[in-house]
Amino acid sequence: MTKPRRILFVTGTRADFGKLEPLALAARDAGHHVAFFVTGMHMLPAYGLTKVEVHRVPGVDVVEFLNHREGDPQDVIFAKTVIGFSDHLRVEPPDLVVIHGDRVEAMATALVCATNYVRCAHIEGGEVSGTIDEVFRHCNTKLAHSHLVSSLTARRRVLAMGESADCVHVIGSPELDTHSAPSGVTLEAVRARYDIPFDSYGIVIFHPVTSEAETMGQQAADLFGVLEVSGQSFVVIRPNNDPGVDAIQEVIASLPPARFRVLPSMRFSHFSELLRNAAAIIGNSSTGVREAPFLGTPSLDIGTRQTNRALSASVHQAAAADHASIAAFLQDDWGKRHPPSQEFGAGRSADNFLAVLADPDFWTRPLQKHFMEGDA
Amino acid sequence: MTKPRRILFVTGTRADFGKLEPLALAARDAGHHVAFFVTGMHMLPAYGLTKVEVHRVPGVDVVEFLNHREGDPQDVIFAKTVIGFSDHLRVEPPDLVVIHGDRVEAMATALVCATNYVRCAHIEGGEVSGTIDEVFRHCNTKLAHSHLVSSLTARRRVLAMGESADCVHVIGSPELDTHSAPSGVTLEAVRARYDIPFDSYGIVIFHPVTSEAETMGQQAADLFGVLEVSGQSFVVIRPNNDPGVDAIQEVIASLPPARFRVLPSMRFSHFSELLRNAAAIIGNSSTGVREAPFLGTPSLDIGTRQTNRALSASVHQAAAADHASIAAFLQDDWGKRHPPSQEFGAGRSADNFLAVLADPDFWTRPLQKHFMEGDA
Amino acid sequence: MTKPRRILFVTGTRADFGKLEPLALAARDAGHHVAFFVTGMHMLPAYGLTKVEVHRVPGVDVVEFLNHREGDPQDVIFAKTVIGFSDHLRVEPPDLVVIHGDRVEAMATALVCATNYVRCAHIEGGEVSGTIDEVFRHCNTKLAHSHLVSSLTARRRVLAMGESADCVHVIGSPELDTHSAPSGVTLEAVRARYDIPFDSYGIVIFHPVTSEAETMGQQAADLFGVLEVSGQSFVVIRPNNDPGVDAIQEVIASLPPARFRVLPSMRFSHFSELLRNAAAIIGNSSTGVREAPFLGTPSLDIGTRQTNRALSASVHQAAAADHASIAAFLQDDWGKRHPPSQEFGAGRSADNFLAVLADPDFWTRPLQKHFMEGDA
Amino acid sequence: MTKPRRILFVTGTRADFGKLEPLALAARDAGHHVAFFVTGMHMLPAYGLTKVEVHRVPGVDVVEFLNHREGDPQDVIFAKTVIGFSDHLRVEPPDLVVIHGDRVEAMATALVCATNYVRCAHIEGGEVSGTIDEVFRHCNTKLAHSHLVSSLTARRRVLAMGESADCVHVIGSPELDTHSAPSGVTLEAVRARYDIPFDSYGIVIFHPVTSEAETMGQQAADLFGVLEVSGQSFVVIRPNNDPGVDAIQEVIASLPPARFRVLPSMRFSHFSELLRNAAAIIGNSSTGVREAPFLGTPSLDIGTRQTNRALSASVHQAAAADHASIAAFLQDDWGKRHPPSQEFGAGRSADNFLAVLADPDFWTRPLQKHFMEGDA
Repeated sequence: MTKPRRILFVTGTRADFGKLEPLALAARDAGHHVAFFVTGMHMLPAYGLTKVEVHRVPGVDVVEFLNHREGDPQDVIFAKTVIGFSDHLRVEPPDLVVIHGDRVEAMATALVCATNYVRCAHIEGGEVSGTIDEVFRHCNTKLAHSHLVSSLTARRRVLAMGESADCVHVIGSPELDTHSAPSGVTLEAVRARYDIPFDSYGIVIFHPVTSEAETMGQQAADLFGVLEVSGQSFVVIRPNNDPGVDAIQEVIASLPPARFRVLPSMRFSHFSELLRNAAAIIGNSSTGVREAPFLGTPSLDIGTRQTNRALSASVHQAAAADHASIAAFLQDDWGKRHPPSQEFGAGRSADNFLAVLADPDFWTRPLQKHFMEGDA
Repeated sequence: MTKPRRILFVTGTRADFGKLEPLALAARDAGHHVAFFVTGMHMLPAYGLTKVEVHRVPGVDVVEFLNHREGDPQDVIFAKTVIGFSDHLRVEPPDLVVIHGDRVEAMATALVCATNYVRCAHIEGGEVSGTIDEVFRHCNTKLAHSHLVSSLTARRRVLAMGESADCVHVIGSPELDTHSAPSGVTLEAVRARYDIPFDSYGIVIFHPVTSEAETMGQQAADLFGVLEVSGQSFVVIRPNNDPGVDAIQEVIASLPPARFRVLPSMRFSHFSELLRNAAAIIGNSSTGVREAPFLGTPSLDIGTRQTNRALSASVHQAAAADHASIAAFLQDDWGKRHPPSQEFGAGRSADNFLAVLADPDFWTRPLQKHFMEGDA
Repeated sequence: MTKPRRILFVTGTRADFGKLEPLALAARDAGHHVAFFVTGMHMLPAYGLTKVEVHRVPGVDVVEFLNHREGDPQDVIFAKTVIGFSDHLRVEPPDLVVIHGDRVEAMATALVCATNYVRCAHIEGGEVSGTIDEVFRHCNTKLAHSHLVSSLTARRRVLAMGESADCVHVIGSPELDTHSAPSGVTLEAVRARYDIPFDSYGIVIFHPVTSEAETMGQQAADLFGVLEVSGQSFVVIRPNNDPGVDAIQEVIASLPPARFRVLPSMRFSHFSELLRNAAAIIGNSSTGVREAPFLGTPSLDIGTRQTNRALSASVHQAAAADHASIAAFLQDDWGKRHPPSQEFGAGRSADNFLAVLADPDFWTRPLQKHFMEGDA
Repeated sequence: MTKPRRILFVTGTRADFGKLEPLALAARDAGHHVAFFVTGMHMLPAYGLTKVEVHRVPGVDVVEFLNHREGDPQDVIFAKTVIGFSDHLRVEPPDLVVIHGDRVEAMATALVCATNYVRCAHIEGGEVSGTIDEVFRHCNTKLAHSHLVSSLTARRRVLAMGESADCVHVIGSPELDTHSAPSGVTLEAVRARYDIPFDSYGIVIFHPVTSEAETMGQQAADLFGVLEVSGQSFVVIRPNNDPGVDAIQEVIASLPPARFRVLPSMRFSHFSELLRNAAAIIGNSSTGVREAPFLGTPSLDIGTRQTNRALSASVHQAAAADHASIAAFLQDDWGKRHPPSQEFGAGRSADNFLAVLADPDFWTRPLQKHFMEGDA
């Protein structure tokens, strides 16, 4: 039986909370004292005040910290988070801080852990995105004491950066845990609830890419043009509200409703059931490169948004303007089933996380780090 | 002719100023506008208020920022430096920020550069020390846009961490620039000024290691015991004022003055002349592993303080308690001359720095970074 | 019917919460949206983590902000509170901020209100204490837009400081509201619960005075010496945990238990019942100069702690060393009943507060203040 | 002979520096160690980087602190100034901090003095302006330990606020010191340098009032219309760069150059000579209500900007739209000489300041303040 520990999870967005929650629940159920440090976008009404979702988790403590106002630059947010988290650590020192990903809140809290010698584990290190966030992510790798990565590729990068192999654990991507369990709903129930008349359908999710905002309208016109010509039917999930979104929405508005069912969003369990039964998923959501391969559904990844983020055989790639490749995918891969990809784990990251925590060595490894030279 | 740029050097200690000054002077003389952002220990009377040394540099601007009071923890210093430097960048945006090494001030300012897309060059990345500072140093590598490293070994580590090869420049260690020029004084003048009666002498510098504070007295007793038995003569420079220093001072106080000339410190030019004519240098100062090999003087590195920091053939290693190895070094290597090691450059880092700045590509490389995968 | 408003109460200690709670409950019951900004000592486990008491209030929102760590100087706490409260006001702007008293948290939030033109009402302005807190209290008077004072004396001081008469409302001292209602318990029940065998008793509360820490032991010895000689019986409430407390505790430990019943603390309702039936209250608690006169119980105020804080006829004053005066009080005033003093109101401050809020002019008075010259 | 003290003057703008400089020079010449803490607008290039003017003062130390960036709200500036000044006080504790007036920097530094028990003297307390700055000014009165006021009226207000009479010193308004000495130039030299052809002239300075920005054009048209009709000649100093300035500048541009000589600014000594020889000064600058009465020159104060700020017999008042009163002033008061008003002192505030410092009691008065009740 594992000794109970005080584990503090840092969450700044609904997205990272989705990744941390399965791990936190598992830790709680294994007898650890679990708390969330809730900050960032969670605290702002403009983003839906999603801190309430954290408060709904039973059996855990919740600490709120408002770390910015609208308009604050990232370095100011960083500094305020450092002060607030450092004050909190003095008041309630945990045995372990768990951070996730690549946002400024994660790096600020990792820095506080490093300078105060508080053990810190980083989820999903070693991934790439090509934005400023990627820099934060790699700094988190250098600041954190343990690395709970999602894939062997990520592990390789973390090791290259000089981390010690016994501190890097491939636990898989936590959001796959939910997909690995039965969804709890039938496909018929999903189709009924969301008014989806099609027997065979693809799913389309096409978000704007901020640095390509001015071409998103043309990209959407290209992509949806080929889809329309194909004669197939599609469930379209509306894009994120980032620069360039209006031009995409305009294209979506012009699609024939008989073959394009457009939805703003879906319940998670229903979406999971829809995805595992889809003939294909098309667009630039991470769902296409991470969840779909795990469920065996073929993906067509469009454009640059997921570049270098996945390697599964079920994922094809095309530019939006590459009508021929898109058409070929719809022709050749529609409805194919692939063996489940375990590139990002087997949907057991919570179990893997518990196994890491259960190892007494995890808690006694030195907090002073050394650069490990790779094999030449 | 290079286009004149606004270059801001960040300095937090006398030590990093010693490294940055040769580069700043060269940049100034090449026609660039040079300024120093002076912060950290420079600003505290307790550390000698060394900001005055920066003010003495002619032809450069000096911006002062007091970023801490005695007792502030490192994360609080970090946050205050972020705010202060970020405010400053808004007021006087430079074309390039140059940071050095591994201290909290360097990382805080590198973070501000990264989030504000201000070009940042990092001096002496890729080195190792095994302390919390090493973590800061590697974060600087991930945050900075250019890397002006001191050795091929450092370059290899920076590349392993995913940096792009065209952003890594081996310029050598800047403090060797000063040693590479004639010292301007004769050995006779040095011996006269510091009252050194010996014709043949070794130099001993033995600093406390904070994490070994309680054994420093025994280590000093071991080391100086062998030196005393050897019958040779030594110039001893007093150790840094860190935990464990008292026990070392006590040992030093007991040495016979006829063969141990103890000095608190020396002028740089005089020390350089003394070092190049020494029969050996013994102890755990970085001088032994960096400057001495450059000058061809044999070194005996004692204990863990410089572990993994140098590879030159002229450097031997021994634990303080290893009387046999120490005695053997004094027997076999005393007075030997080695070919100058260029592991840390040829003493031309300022010239190399100017060559980097003179390349127009340096100023146009994208500020958005990508992780470069190494060759498998 | 009053228009519902968003009212935010700032609380930093259990003491000010005791004053703010009756007002907040009344505002809530009158239909206003009530929230607490909880900060200061409430947030620290070392002080009992009293934020949980605020969370127990039904029907109100609670916003937590950790504004310091142990050891932070007051100006640093001030600055952190300003940033945190200013961020919060941007996120959830209220119609009115209510602050209380003289602590650094009150002044910091009043400053934020002033510079952001958010209406701010200050409870218990115009009182004096002779410490740094008094300076904060008077600054609050200059920063706040409305003044809800406890007495005519306080009103006079607030007007002298240049505030406009139509912004100063004498509502009385809020903690008297609770004493003005029946306690809900019988004296017999109180005596049974706390094991108090005496029919006739005095209450003694003697806190350390920080600036007199070194003489507190002697003062306690003097005071309790006279009490012991008097032959009367006493309920002694243990003193606050401030410098000098140990010497007082030592004196208390030496008292004969048969006539001195020592209690660490009491439930509020039980204490209220005990106080209204006491033969006298002796010591330096504010209870002696504020609540006791309201209940008609005679008080002997010892030493400097409450200097200039009350004027009621039922309050006598003596130095601890003044054995004669103490003995005379015990002789002459023991068991006397006085007409209730209304110097600090009639125990209806919540009603008075609601009346202030119900005046539409309250919400439209200009937020730009002018110094009002007194009558010459 | 006065014991030399360390005196630190806080300056945030060119305006307050103009007031503090005569006092600082006098203190320096009396043998005290004088330093300036330079912050606020002085540090921003957008406001002319006026810190260089402070650096030009010989024989004093200068400490720079950048306390804001463009766009920072006042409470954030306040918090940053508190941290920066508090850090500075730990590093170089002075015997006395001197602040001036009503800006956020003065209040932030006064707060730091109050909580750290560092003696603080406030220049020009007790004045009124009817803006948020007035609130800061009165808080400074409550925070500071000594009050060096400019008039008996100001003294009366400071006493009303509960300050102790022995801490309030009427030293007069420091900028009058410069006017009280001979200007060092002749009127002819002034007229030659600034190309002023008139023998008889009025001076006009008309600044925008922020809260009346939208009517400033009409006000300027009204005022200058009457001036133009009068047939007299005028030297016009351009207005401050505040909201509403464009409309004023437009009116000024339309004036006939033969009778309106428009200047952007003047050297202080030249302006002083011009003012003492002017037939009148007209507009809303404080010069009209403070310096002009001291020099005996008649003033017409226009609009609300100086309301309640002066009482001298030589000052007349009119609204800009009140053509009749303006015309009457030009008819009746043009060229009149008044006996010098000493409402704001005799131009000897520096001497008075030294006298205050020379009193040993000044340095030993308790730093703990008490509210002094006025005489009823």
